[in-house]
Amino acid sequence: MLSKKWKFWIKKPLRCSPVSNQRLNLEQWMNNIRSRTDVALIQKINETDVGSKRLRDAMLYAVTSGGKKIRPMLVHAVSDLGDPHEFVVDTVSACIELVHIYSLIHDDLPCMDNDDLRHGKATLHVKYDEATAVLVGDALHCLAFDGLSRACLKVSDSQKLSLINILTRASGSEGMVAGQVLDLGLVGRKSTASKLEKMQKLKTGALISAAANMGAVCALSLKPGEKKSISNFAQIIGRVFQVVDDILDSEANTRTLGKTAGKDLRDKKPNFVSALGLQPAKDYAKNLKKEAIKHLDVFSTRANRLIQLANFIVDRKF
Amino acid sequence: MLSKKWKFWIKKPLRCSPVSNQRLNLEQWMNNIRSRTDVALIQKINETDVGSKRLRDAMLYAVTSGGKKIRPMLVHAVSDLGDPHEFVVDTVSACIELVHIYSLIHDDLPCMDNDDLRHGKATLHVKYDEATAVLVGDALHCLAFDGLSRACLKVSDSQKLSLINILTRASGSEGMVAGQVLDLGLVGRKSTASKLEKMQKLKTGALISAAANMGAVCALSLKPGEKKSISNFAQIIGRVFQVVDDILDSEANTRTLGKTAGKDLRDKKPNFVSALGLQPAKDYAKNLKKEAIKHLDVFSTRANRLIQLANFIVDRKF
Repeated sequence: MLSKKWKFWIKKPLRCSPVSNQRLNLEQWMNNIRSRTDVALIQKINETDVGSKRLRDAMLYAVTSGGKKIRPMLVHAVSDLGDPHEFVVDTVSACIELVHIYSLIHDDLPCMDNDDLRHGKATLHVKYDEATAVLVGDALHCLAFDGLSRACLKVSDSQKLSLINILTRASGSEGMVAGQVLDLGLVGRKSTASKLEKMQKLKTGALISAAANMGAVCALSLKPGEKKSISNFAQIIGRVFQVVDDILDSEANTRTLGKTAGKDLRDKKPNFVSALGLQPAKDYAKNLKKEAIKHLDVFSTRANRLIQLANFIVDRKF
Repeated sequence: MLSKKWKFWIKKPLRCSPVSNQRLNLEQWMNNIRSRTDVALIQKINETDVGSKRLRDAMLYAVTSGGKKIRPMLVHAVSDLGDPHEFVVDTVSACIELVHIYSLIHDDLPCMDNDDLRHGKATLHVKYDEATAVLVGDALHCLAFDGLSRACLKVSDSQKLSLINILTRASGSEGMVAGQVLDLGLVGRKSTASKLEKMQKLKTGALISAAANMGAVCALSLKPGEKKSISNFAQIIGRVFQVVDDILDSEANTRTLGKTAGKDLRDKKPNFVSALGLQPAKDYAKNLKKEAIKHLDVFSTRANRLIQLANFIVDRKF
C-alpha cells in the first residue's frame, strides 16, 4: 500500500505558482522549483503503468528523497529567458532530475561508492536491497527518455529529439558514465588538476551543462547568439559545480551536507582540494563563476535570476 | 589498446549483402543478420566519443560477446514486409539489441542472477568487475536512445519518437525492468501459470514484441490493417519465446545453451515447466506459435521469412 502522503501527492494536479515571477526572492523561487519538480516527478511515476508494486514503491522512495534540484533550477532559469511553455519546463526538469537520481542510486551501490546515506536518508540499496537499487536506477533512467518522447509534451518533434540527444550525450559514455569510470580509476592514486578537470567535466559537469542547454531548447524566443552565450555559460557552470562539491566535502559536516562528509579523503579519492589546496580551490571556483556570469552580459537584467543561481551554486553550504 | 580484431571491425564500413534476398535459406539469412548487427553495434560504439578507454573496451567486450540476435531478426523480418531503408533497419536492430545486452549484464550481477557465463563467455562482472558491469549496462542503455534520436537516422522525427517510445515502454517499469523485479520476488515460491505469464510477458515478452513493432515502424509501406496484424503477432511471439526458454533451461545442457542450464531449479525459481510440466509446456508453446502465425495470413507468402523465424523461435535448441 502507498502511504497517505504519497496518495495525496499522486492525486494532486500539477498546479503551482508561476516560477517566472521575478518578485520572489531567491529562496522562495528555489523552494517553488523544488516543489514543482517533486510534483512533476511523482506525477511522472503516477502516469506510468508500473508492472510491480515493489518497483513502484521503490521508485517513489527514490524520487521523494530530497536533493537540491540544481538541474531543474537551471532548466527553469534559462528557459525563463525565452517564453517557455510551463508544463514543458516542468517535464523537462523532471526528466533530467530522473537521470541525476538514477545515477546517484547506482553510484551509492556497495560495488561503487558504498554509501548508506543520501540527502539525509537511507540509500536505496540500504532501504530495499542491491538488486532493487540496480533495477530502480534502470527504470528511472528509461523513464527520463519516455517523458521526453511522449506525444503530450507540447514542443515540436525536432525539439523533443534535441532534448533527448542533449541528455544522452551528457549522461552516457560521452559524459557522466565515463566520468564515473574515470573517478573509480583514480581511487588511491595521486592526480593532477588537469586529469581531475577531465573527470569532473564528464562526471558532473556534463549533466549540469545539459540542464542549461535543455533550458535553452525550451526557451522558444531565444536568438541564436543568445543560445551560444547560454552554451558557454553552461560549460563553465558545470565545471565550477564540482569544485564547490569538493570544497564542501572537505569543509562541511555530514549533517549539513546530507551525505557522508570527508568521503574523498577516507576513500583516498583525489579531488580539487587535495590537488590544489583549499584556498586555491576556493579562488578557482570564484574565478570560474565570474567567467560564467560574463557570458550572461548579453541578457542584461533579464538574466538576474540566472546570476543569482550561479552565485548560489558557488556560495552554497550543502 | 584495442585488439587487432576490433580495429578491423571498426574500420570496416557497414556494407553487407541485402537481407531481403529471399533466396537465402533461413540459416544463411540468420547468419547475415548476426553479422550485420555485430557490425552495426561496433560501429555505434566507434561513432561515440567514449570518455574512458576502460569503458570503451568493456562496452566492446559486451557487444561482441555473441547472442542469438533474435530481436534484430524480428526487426528485419517485419520491416522487410514494407520497403525499409536498410541503414535504418540496421541501426534500429542495433539499438534494441543494446537494450537487451545491457539488461543481461545487469541481470547477471551477483546481487541478481549471479551468473558467471553468458553466450559461453565470462560475464562482464567476472571479466572486469561489478562497478564496471553496472556502468557498462548504463552506458549501453543510454546509447540505444542516442542511436534512435540522431539526425543521421533517415526516418522522420515522428518515426524516431515512435521507435523511442516503443522501446521505453517495453524496457522500463512498464515492461522488462518490472518483469525482472517480479521474477526476483518469485524465488523460492510456488507460482501459478497466470502469475508466471504476467512476469514473463513483462520480463521477456515486452522486448520481443517491441522488436516486431519497431520493425513495423521501419516498414514504410505497411497499411494500418497490416500493422495491426503485426502487433497481434508480436504480442504472442513474445509470450512463446519465454516458454521455450524455460523448456530449454530444463532440457538442454550448459554447453549447447551457452549459459548455465538447469538454473531455475537450482535457484528455486518457478517457470513454465515446473508450473505446467514438460509436455504441457511444449504443447502450450506449439499452440501459441500456431496462433501467432495465423495473424500473418494477411501477408500470404510475403511473410514466409517471418513464419520461418517464428518456427525457429519455438524449435530452437539454444
